[in-house]
Amino acid sequence: DIVAAVERRLDDGAKPLAGRKVIVTSGPTHEPIDPVRYIANRSSGRQGHAIAAALAALGADVTLVSGPVAIPDPIGLNVIHVERADEMRDAVLAALPADIAVMVAAVADWKVASASDQKIKKHPGESIPTLALTENPDILKTVGHHTQRPKLVIGFAAETQDVESNARAKLERKGADFIVANDVSPSTGIMGGLRNRVKIISHDGVEQWPDLDKDEVATRLAALIAEKLMQG
Amino acid sequence: DIVAAVERRLDDGAKPLAGRKVIVTSGPTHEPIDPVRYIANRSSGRQGHAIAAALAALGADVTLVSGPVAIPDPIGLNVIHVERADEMRDAVLAALPADIAVMVAAVADWKVASASDQKIKKHPGESIPTLALTENPDILKTVGHHTQRPKLVIGFAAETQDVESNARAKLERKGADFIVANDVSPSTGIMGGLRNRVKIISHDGVEQWPDLDKDEVATRLAALIAEKLMQG
Repeated sequence: DIVAAVERRLDDGAKPLAGRKVIVTSGPTHEPIDPVRYIANRSSGRQGHAIAAALAALGADVTLVSGPVAIPDPIGLNVIHVERADEMRDAVLAALPADIAVMVAAVADWKVASASDQKIKKHPGESIPTLALTENPDILKTVGHHTQRPKLVIGFAAETQDVESNARAKLERKGADFIVANDVSPSTGIMGGLRNRVKIISHDGVEQWPDLDKDEVATRLAALIAEKLMQG
Repeated sequence: DIVAAVERRLDDGAKPLAGRKVIVTSGPTHEPIDPVRYIANRSSGRQGHAIAAALAALGADVTLVSGPVAIPDPIGLNVIHVERADEMRDAVLAALPADIAVMVAAVADWKVASASDQKIKKHPGESIPTLALTENPDILKTVGHHTQRPKLVIGFAAETQDVESNARAKLERKGADFIVANDVSPSTGIMGGLRNRVKIISHDGVEQWPDLDKDEVATRLAALIAEKLMQG
């Protein structure tokens, strides 16, 4: 098949993505509540970092925009560290134009409407604060509909239910060529773990990949990206 | 002075805390919003872990109850890993009785009133969710007023303003013997950093310590604890 063919070529040291500029996002975003507290998510950055490294191995010029993670920067890439979704959006837009965008980061959908300058104190007898939220920028959608839209735009969908239908809706709404969808219910161990089980959803249909190491998912996805770019 | 005297004794390999049981908490707590999102804080666990190690070096039998951190467990201690404040409280109470409790963890004051079983979805056009919060258990206060209260109970106060008056109020309210207070305003770089500048607040008064490596703060505090226990 196509992926196997590209992987064979990779074994030969071929660099099918040489000269191609790629933007990859990875990790969570942290949205401040006050100077010490924030809203986070369980993304480890492992899948996004592995994809960035796999694309670089195929010769691509990769800019990795990473949220706060506890794993090291991949060697030889241009890595930009950000914390908030707003910062990640700015870093991604600043990296355009690009041939390919792979938006793997688990960007927070919401931020706190008005983060406090001072640590919010607990005062005995006083009422408990409520966190009013507001929408964060939708980075995938912004890139998918941008005047400088990369030729290939790939998004991720981390769901805990209705994985495929949610991913299909996302494909249309975000202007993406592919959605890589996975079920991140806690029982799967995927979020924060070492393995992943994904579905590739495109306008051509759905492909279920087996349970794989996140590095293997990255290698396959990089091969698929190289093939698509060569096709079109 | 007292601390220097104890440190000299430590140089001789003395174990002034041999046979003493100590509970130390460290790190942040993570309070779930849904299966993938949570509320966190910037505590790295460095100060708490260093204190646990310093007390063990003085011969104490240390149980370290740690929230989610990216640093390794100190060698030779009994380490219990927890995520939420409720779990930390349970682990601390299960470790009683003890001679000393040093509550360093930055325990979340609030948790989400009703965490969702499924990932909260963003639906275009729908209203934005609000996070209703509810109070977490006050672990320091619980230990400070417990029927099995350790002989020495030490709390930490991470503030961004009115550091000393906040810490004094905490000393009384929580039933602590000491409060170790620090200013964690982002400009200080203390939260998540390697150095700390603390005030020791007790019923005897306030002692300002200089800017020190967190390991040095830990060594001094362990020496102070050993001295207090020998005095009384």
